[in-house]
Order: sequence, then structure tokens, then C-alpha cells
Amino acid sequence: MKVYLDNNATTMLDPNAYELMLPFFKDMYGNPNSLHQWGSQTHPALREAMDKLYAGLGASDLDDIVITSCATESINWVLKSVYFDYILHKDRNEVIISSVEHPAVIGAAMFLKSLGVKVIELPVNDEGVSTLEDLKSVISDKTALVSVMWANNETGMIFPIKEMAELSHQYGALFHTDATQAVGKIKVNLRDVNVDFASFSAHKFHGPKGVGGLFIKKGLKLTPLLHGGEHMGGRRSGTLNVAFIVAMAEALRIANTMLDFENSHIRRLRDKLEDKILSIKDTSVIGRREYRVPNTILASIKGVEGEAMLWDLNKNGIAASTGSACASEALESNPIMEAIGAENDLAHTALRLSLSRFNTEEEIDYVARQIENATQRLRAISSTYAYNPNNYK
Amino acid sequence: MKVYLDNNATTMLDPNAYELMLPFFKDMYGNPNSLHQWGSQTHPALREAMDKLYAGLGASDLDDIVITSCATESINWVLKSVYFDYILHKDRNEVIISSVEHPAVIGAAMFLKSLGVKVIELPVNDEGVSTLEDLKSVISDKTALVSVMWANNETGMIFPIKEMAELSHQYGALFHTDATQAVGKIKVNLRDVNVDFASFSAHKFHGPKGVGGLFIKKGLKLTPLLHGGEHMGGRRSGTLNVAFIVAMAEALRIANTMLDFENSHIRRLRDKLEDKILSIKDTSVIGRREYRVPNTILASIKGVEGEAMLWDLNKNGIAASTGSACASEALESNPIMEAIGAENDLAHTALRLSLSRFNTEEEIDYVARQIENATQRLRAISSTYAYNPNNYK
Ligand SMILES: Cc1ncc(COP(=O)(O)O)c(C=O)c1O
Ligand SMILES: Cc1ncc(COP(=O)(O)O)c(C=O)c1O
Repeated sequence: MKVYLDNNATTMLDPNAYELMLPFFKDMYGNPNSLHQWGSQTHPALREAMDKLYAGLGASDLDDIVITSCATESINWVLKSVYFDYILHKDRNEVIISSVEHPAVIGAAMFLKSLGVKVIELPVNDEGVSTLEDLKSVISDKTALVSVMWANNETGMIFPIKEMAELSHQYGALFHTDATQAVGKIKVNLRDVNVDFASFSAHKFHGPKGVGGLFIKKGLKLTPLLHGGEHMGGRRSGTLNVAFIVAMAEALRIANTMLDFENSHIRRLRDKLEDKILSIKDTSVIGRREYRVPNTILASIKGVEGEAMLWDLNKNGIAASTGSACASEALESNPIMEAIGAENDLAHTALRLSLSRFNTEEEIDYVARQIENATQRLRAISSTYAYNPNNYK
Repeated sequence: MKVYLDNNATTMLDPNAYELMLPFFKDMYGNPNSLHQWGSQTHPALREAMDKLYAGLGASDLDDIVITSCATESINWVLKSVYFDYILHKDRNEVIISSVEHPAVIGAAMFLKSLGVKVIELPVNDEGVSTLEDLKSVISDKTALVSVMWANNETGMIFPIKEMAELSHQYGALFHTDATQAVGKIKVNLRDVNVDFASFSAHKFHGPKGVGGLFIKKGLKLTPLLHGGEHMGGRRSGTLNVAFIVAMAEALRIANTMLDFENSHIRRLRDKLEDKILSIKDTSVIGRREYRVPNTILASIKGVEGEAMLWDLNKNGIAASTGSACASEALESNPIMEAIGAENDLAHTALRLSLSRFNTEEEIDYVARQIENATQRLRAISSTYAYNPNNYK
């Protein structure tokens, strides 16, 4: 059996989105900016796609949703252009991020730091979440931007971004949320949470890899990251990838129609798998379920190296992760486990399982059995666990 | 008959490249950075694609070819990161570009200007080209970067970039070429021309829209534009779009095998069409043919507005352009015509015809007839041309 449980890294392209995009590779390959029929014949689909994106994200017509190549681009755009537009030669010089942001946010923030910006990292509690109180204790009228993710990619934990956005605005600061792991998993209404910027990436909600977007609240200035022609109203240049825009919008539309299913069926499967894991001795899972997106488990299995577990599962056809896919090649300890203060040997036992609507109950039962078997096998050869079972009572 | 002659704006996806990429949308959708089989099964294709790109562009193994989302991204990356790495807090403060660069180069350069960089624009001669002499007369030990396109998108004229790169290096400056319109049309060997950076975009050589690359010569520092995880050796983050990378590499491979065909068959068709246009009274074409890429004609038809001609051709199933697709929506005068100093009424008569290997002789004959007819029709209703025929002798 093959079971893909690494949907927080990337997802399968939705079959309908796939079908919808193919014509734009084959016959309708014109540049939408062109004045001839190859250009204009793409317009209805583009318009429809943009409508789906606005509706699907709860944006108003006055807001901008700008197509980018991925969340990483959107995130870099916000952080770097906030520097140019709201920090350089201005009297605010601080950026606040949570300490468990995606490497794109952390990397861009560290770049700003090298330019002299003060970067403040919010701590996280033992559930891996930064609280409103954390933000309150550091925000000031020196804060130019607060950037906090909507949902964490490793734990699935949801951050109080609506409250944080409100607090940020009280201090005259801008608020950006990396919504990459929220879109398609929970209801995302950007007007409702009242953020200034929001980043997302299609391949996290069964759209294609290599397309994403940035929401920019009505009227906000943001110097382009990609300067050039007049595409996207001058906000972001580069010839439009109509195929992927159409596919992303359809994937979002479908994902949103499936939110109830996500919240019932997928959540139930997730909880079932989580219960099975927790029924194994000396295991734990980060964060309360009701504060998580419905598809994610970050488990810790004492005495079992995350990578060893991955290899074992992989041999049995199961895809999982030790955390962020970005860090996977490096075989490092799990950053969120470190952030919540887990001891180092625990930080190496992280196992992330992330479901999608394409998973079945049969698959989940199979995975539960395989994790049980693998745990037994790996603990039997673990120097730490086998020799010191009392450490793990 | 439908004839697509707007290949400098964007091209049809090559059918083989299309077939090759589809599996990566369907079954092989893993993130290449993941440790499981969905990730690792993409590795052979990715490696093969990168090999094709290195071979197809004449890069050495020690150089970096970094995948980006388009030439616009690559260009913005070079110009902005040269600012951070080689201008800010350093003693060089000048960037030299040609005055007929793509809006991405001009836009990024204007952004640098707003940060205090001195931007020098090279003039162009009546063929629309900047010469080595032009560069010689302004380059100095204050020059940090020279950015000159390999071939111009509107005229197809080829710039002396090998000589310009050499001169730049003599002054200790870096050299970037926007090779977007050269790749796939003429032989591109980046080691041979010895540039430091080169930008390209797949959809100009029958690859997909939304993927491109940046060549970075061995060992050169260039701060990322997209900070984040460890993708592409830390050079450019964002989950890899394997499907498009595979398709781009295959499109390049095929385009390179077709260069002789491009240079004989397509050139012959281009010249035939050009001769037909020039046989119409009061027409001209910018630049000598032997200094142009083989597929491009930028014609001027006195008394005929470029947009009027486009509409007329479009009605008859023919796609053409008045110049850069980026500017098309704006109905402006042709920027290159302005740059070479054409009078304003001439600058509005620009018609760009850009062929591809998918065009046939029958199509070209049809287009020649349609242009002749349209010219007659439009001149008959042109106030300037009809009433003052003597102006155009
Ligand atoms: C929370 C979060 N933000 C940003 C990203 C970056 O997405 P992409 O790689 O598509 O740019 C990811 C996925 O890797 C993510 O999980
Ligand atoms: C010379 C040149 N440079 C850069 C670009 C930008 O390419 P893209 O839109 O794929 O970023 C184009 C095409 O529009 C071009 O013709």
C-alpha cells in the first residue's frame, strides 16, 4: 500500500484543477497582455480565476490579490518592501516575527537585520504557539511590521492572528500573516481577520507548485519585488502563467467546498491515527487538537530517531516528514521541538503526519500499524531507549 | 487560417516538453526535498533537467544555474542584489544599462536610482543597438554593473555582449546579460561570452510560462532575492516546480537541436516576409538582417497605426505585436522607435512579426498578402497618409 501523509510539504494536484489548466498549455498559450485573440482568449478564464481567488480568500474588490510564484516570494516581498516603504528613512525600525515562522520569513527577517533592522522573535509556549500576551510585551511605536503565521507547518497549531493584527494596528504597525498552511484547511477570510498582507502557495491546497499569491489590503503601498512592465497593475511583473493561475483558483474553490469534510472526515481520521500513536508508550503530540488545523500531527516517539522512522515508513510505502520539508535534506533536529524547549534527544524524534482529503480510513489503519511495528523494531535497536527504559516512563 | 507571429511575446509549449512534464503533475508530485519516495523519485528527472540546462547554455559544473520563476525575477535579482553586495557600503555606485532594455531591467534600475545609485543609459544607433564605443565612453572604475541584453525583444538586434563583458571586466565591473530573446534562437554559450550573470525565461523558447533561470558565474556572491530554506543550494528558496523545470530543460534541448533549422528555414521565411513588406511603398525595417536573431522583423509602415494594423491582422487570424507585449495594453508608441529617434508619427507605426519553427511557408505567404491588403485599406482611411502622400515619398 502507498500512503501519502506529507501534505504539509506539498499536495497532489487536484484532478479537476489539472484538467482545467491543460488547455492553457496546448492551444491557449497566448500572453494575456497581447492585443490579439491568443491573448484575449485567456481573459475570461483569468477573470474567473481571479474572482474565485477573491471569493475564496474573503478579499474585497478594493484589495489586491497579486499572483506570485510561491509563498516564499510573497513573504520576501512583504518583508523587504516594508523595509523600503516603511522603515528606511522612517522612524520605525522594528520587525516582530514568531520564532517558529517558516524559513522564508526568518531568512528575510535576518536579511533585514543585516541592514540594521531590529528583529524581535516572539517565544512560543509548550504547544508551539506565540500568544497575544507575547506580542503585547514587545510591540511598541517603533514596530513597523508584525509577521506571524496563521497555522504552523509542523504542528498545525493556529495562531491568534486576528487579535494580533488588531493589536498591531493599535500601535500603527502593519500585520502580515503567512497563511500558507491555513488556506484550504480552515476557513480563511482575510477581511474578517483584517490583516494587511497575507501570503499563500497553491501547492499546499492541491494546486500546482510554482504559483502563489500575496493579498494586499486596499490602498497599501508596497514597492514591487519584481519590477518591470504593467502586469498585475504594476504590482508584480513577469509574463502571466495563466495555466497555473486557473489551476490555483480552481484548487482553492474546491478546497473551500471541502472544508466541512476536512473538519469532520479528515479530522476524524487524524484523531484516530493520533490516538493510535498516543496508545504507544512514551509518545506525545504537540498542541491541543482543537487549536490545530484538522490534518496535522507532530508526534514525538521517545527513543526513535525521526529519520529512522521515516526510512522505515518509506520502505512500507508511507510518506511522512520530520518537520519542514525545507529542512529535511539537512537531517537536523526539529526546529519547533527546539523552540518549545524539548531536550535535544526529543527534538530528534519528531514525526510529522499530514493528511489530505485523498486519504482513506484503510490507509490510516495501515499507517497506524506500521508506526507501531516500526516503533517496536527501532526501539529494540536504540541504544538510548533499549538500555534505559526507565528514562522514558 | 490562424497564424501566430508573436513568438517574441510568448511561444507555444513544445509538445515533447509538454508530455515530459505531465507525470510530475499527476503521480510524481512529491517535494524533491522530502526524504520519502515521492520526493526521491523526482531526483533523476531533476538531475537530467539540470544537466540539459548546463549543457544547453554552455555553463561549467562550477557555475550556478538557479531556477527562478521568470526572467523578470532573474533580472530583478541581479540588479537588486548587486546593489546590496557590490554597491552599498562599497566605493562603486554606478550601473550602466542600454536604453532599450526590457522594462524589468529599466524598472529595477530606476528602483536602484531611487536608492541613490547613478544609472547610466547607453544610447542606441539607428539600428537600435548600443555599441562597444558607447560603453567605452561612460564606463569607469565607479561602475559596479553593466547590464546589456543579448538580443532585443522588439528588433531582434544582437548586442556585442562578449566584447562588452570583456571591457566591463577590465574596469572591474560585473556584467549581466538579459539573454531572454537569445536563448533558443541563436547559439548561447555563456562560458564563451564570459558574462557574470545571464537571465532567461522558458516561455520564449517553447517552454512553459512561469519558469526561468539565472546563470551565476562560478563563485560569485549574490544575496538571494527569495530568502528561505536550502533549495537550490540556498540561492533561491521556494518549493521546486519539478514539472516546469523538466519541461524547460527539454524545450531548451530541442531548441538547441533546431538552431540550424532556425538559421536556415526560419530565417528564409522571415526574409521572405520582410522582402514582401519592403516591397510595399513607404515601409522600412529596423536593423540589418545579419545582426538580428533569425525570427524577428520590426517594420514601420508609414501612415498606418500599429494598433490598427494589429486589429486588422487579428481579424484575419494573425497574431502580431506593436513591440513588447508588456507595453501592448497601454497603446503607447513603440519605445525602440523612440530610442532610435524616429519621429513620433513613425513610432506609432511599429509592427513586430516574430516567427517560430512551427510556422510554415503557406502561413508566411498568407500573412504577406494580409499585410499588403491591410496597408492599402488603412492608408485609404488614414488622414495623414491619404491627404499628404508626398510626405511619405
Ligand atoms: C508555513 C509556510 N510558509 C511558507 C512556505 C513556502 O511555500 P513555497 O515553498 O511554496 O514558497 C511553506 C512551505 O514550504 C510553509 O509551510
Ligand atoms: C528581453 C526580455 N527580457 C525579459 C523578459 C521578461 O520575461 P518574463 O516575462 O518571462 O519574466 C522578456 C519578455 O517579456 C524579454 O523579451
